[in-house]
Amino acid sequence: MMRQAGRYLPEYRQLRERHAFLDCVHRPELAAELTLQPLRRFAFDAGIIFSDILIVLEAMGLGVSFGEGGPRISPTLGDGDLSRLRRPDAPRDFAFIAEALRLVRAGIASDEGIADHDRALIGFAGAPFTLACYAIEGSGSKDFSATRAFMYANPSAFGDLMSRLAGAAADLLVEQLRAGADAVQLFDTWGGTLSRNDYESHVLPHVTGIVERVHAEGGHIVLFIRDSGHLVDLALSTGADGIGIDWRADVADAASRIGPRAALQGNLDPALLFAPPPLIRTRVAQIREAVGSCAHVLNLGHGVLPGTPIEGVAAFVDAARAESASAAR
Amino acid sequence: MMRQAGRYLPEYRQLRERHAFLDCVHRPELAAELTLQPLRRFAFDAGIIFSDILIVLEAMGLGVSFGEGGPRISPTLGDGDLSRLRRPDAPRDFAFIAEALRLVRAGIASDEGIADHDRALIGFAGAPFTLACYAIEGSGSKDFSATRAFMYANPSAFGDLMSRLAGAAADLLVEQLRAGADAVQLFDTWGGTLSRNDYESHVLPHVTGIVERVHAEGGHIVLFIRDSGHLVDLALSTGADGIGIDWRADVADAASRIGPRAALQGNLDPALLFAPPPLIRTRVAQIREAVGSCAHVLNLGHGVLPGTPIEGVAAFVDAARAESASAAR
Repeated sequence: MMRQAGRYLPEYRQLRERHAFLDCVHRPELAAELTLQPLRRFAFDAGIIFSDILIVLEAMGLGVSFGEGGPRISPTLGDGDLSRLRRPDAPRDFAFIAEALRLVRAGIASDEGIADHDRALIGFAGAPFTLACYAIEGSGSKDFSATRAFMYANPSAFGDLMSRLAGAAADLLVEQLRAGADAVQLFDTWGGTLSRNDYESHVLPHVTGIVERVHAEGGHIVLFIRDSGHLVDLALSTGADGIGIDWRADVADAASRIGPRAALQGNLDPALLFAPPPLIRTRVAQIREAVGSCAHVLNLGHGVLPGTPIEGVAAFVDAARAESASAAR
Repeated sequence: MMRQAGRYLPEYRQLRERHAFLDCVHRPELAAELTLQPLRRFAFDAGIIFSDILIVLEAMGLGVSFGEGGPRISPTLGDGDLSRLRRPDAPRDFAFIAEALRLVRAGIASDEGIADHDRALIGFAGAPFTLACYAIEGSGSKDFSATRAFMYANPSAFGDLMSRLAGAAADLLVEQLRAGADAVQLFDTWGGTLSRNDYESHVLPHVTGIVERVHAEGGHIVLFIRDSGHLVDLALSTGADGIGIDWRADVADAASRIGPRAALQGNLDPALLFAPPPLIRTRVAQIREAVGSCAHVLNLGHGVLPGTPIEGVAAFVDAARAESASAAR
C-alpha cells in the first residue's frame, strides 16, 4: 500500500508522538523501524522505505518543513532564480536513506513476524514535475495552477528546473538501488494536473531520462502518476517497468493499453478501506478481473488515508491473498 | 469564462475592499454590479450571475462562511445526522438571487458598453455531489476522500443526502430560470474524484433528475464536472444540453463522444492566460480544430485564476472572436 508506514497505524502514531516527522526521515533507525511496523502487522509483499518525496528538494538546498498545513518550502523558486539549487552530492547527501534501507533489509531477514514471508524492499523519489510544483509554490495547492502558469510563461527556465530536478531524483533512486532496494517508485502526485500534450512536451523527456538511469543501474522502476487516466500511454512510453494508476482510472482500459509491456499497479480507492469488508472484497475481485492477463501489482490508487480502520486494511490484505491464491490455482 | 466576475479584475477587488464576499452574494445590487463588471470590459457573450455554489447549503440551514482558508460549513453532516437539513422555501430563500438576475437583465439592456453586444445571462448551482463534499467535510480538501469514505460506509444515508441536495439545487436553478436566466449551469467541481462506476451509481440519477426539472421548466442546462475525462459519456447520458470539460480532458475525444447530442464547453487551461498572447491564440485555435463539427461554447477548463493578467483575458477574448469570425466565413 502506498504510505503503508503511516498515521493509520497506532504504533506509528506512538513513535511520532516522540519524534518530529523529518527526524523520522533523517534518522536511519527511526525510518527503518517505521518501515518495518506495517510488515509486522500485515502480510504485505513489500516494505516501502519510510521517507518523503521532498527530500530531493532538501538535498538541493531548499528548506523543507512540515507542519499542520502540510509541507512548506522556503525559499521558493517562484521568481525563477534557479541559482539557489545545487546538485546533491549523492552518496553523502542521501547516506541517511541508504543506511535506513540497510537496516530494513536486516530487519526483514531477522525480525520475528516478518521473516516468515518473502518481502521485497522498495525505494522512491518525487518525480520532477511534482517537485517543481512544491519548489515553485512553496506548499500544497488544489491543482498547482501557478506551476503551470510559470511553465507557460517561462518555458526555458521551467525546462532547466525540470532537468535539475530529474537529475537529482535519479541520483536518489540510484543510491537506493545501490543500498539494496529491490525496485524503486517515482511518484508524480501532481503530473495529472497537466493535459496530455503538456505532459508530453514538458515532462516526459525528463521522466524517461530517470527511467534510463535506473535501467542503466540494472534496477526496476514503477511510475505512479496520480489522476492519470489520460496519460497511461505516455507513462508506458517512458519504458517504466510498472505503471501505477489511481482509483479513477479505468483498469480494463489501462490494462489493455499496457498489455505485456509492463505491470499495472493499482487501484483500489483508499476511501474504500472505510467500507464494510464484503464491499472491499468485491471491489478487489473486480479489479483483478478487469486486469485480465496483464501483470498486476495490487495496490491502492493513492496513499492509505490517516484515519483508515485497521480492519479495513486487514480485509484488503486478506482479499488480495485470496485473489492471489485463486489465481495460482 | 467561469468565475469571470472575480478577483483578477481591479474593479472587483475595489468593490470587495468595502464589502464581504457573502454580502456581495446576498445583496442584489452588489451581485448585479459584480456580474456586469466583466461585461463592460470584455466582449463576453454571456454574463454569469455573481453568486456561490454553496448558497444551496445555506438555504438548507447549514452555516456557510468564507475566510482566508476558503469556505467553512458549520455544523457539518459528517455524523450522518441529516435532520439539520431543511428543504429551502424556494421563492423566498432565493429571492435575493432572483432580484440580482432582474437587475443584471436591466443592466445588460441599458448599460453603456454592454448593450452594444448580445449578452446571454447564466445562472448556476452547485451539483449535489460537490455540495455533499462540503456538507460532510466542512471545508476544502485535496480530493474529499472523507466524502467517499462516508459514501462507501453509509450508502443509504449518502443517497438520502444526495436526494435532498439535488432537490434544493434544482429549486435554485428553476428560480433563476423564472427570474430571467437564459440558461443554467450545474457545477460538479468534485465529481471527478469518483470513479466511473461510483459516479454512475451514486451520483448520476440525482443529476439526471435535476436536468429533467430544468427541462420541465423549458430551460437549458450545462453540466460541468471538473477532472471528468473519464465521465463524459455519463455526463451526456443525463440529457444535459451542454457538457463542460476541464483542461485535462481530451477535446477531440470528448467532441466525438458528444457529437450532435449536446454542446461541448471548454477547455483552455486557466493557467494559460498567464502565457504570452501568441501562445493563447495558438491554443484556442487548437481547441477549435479539435472540436470539429460539435457545437462548442469556448470557455476555460475551470475558473479564471485570481492573479490572471487582464492582458491574458483580453488575448483570450480576441482569439475567441477571431476564431468565431473565421468559422462564420
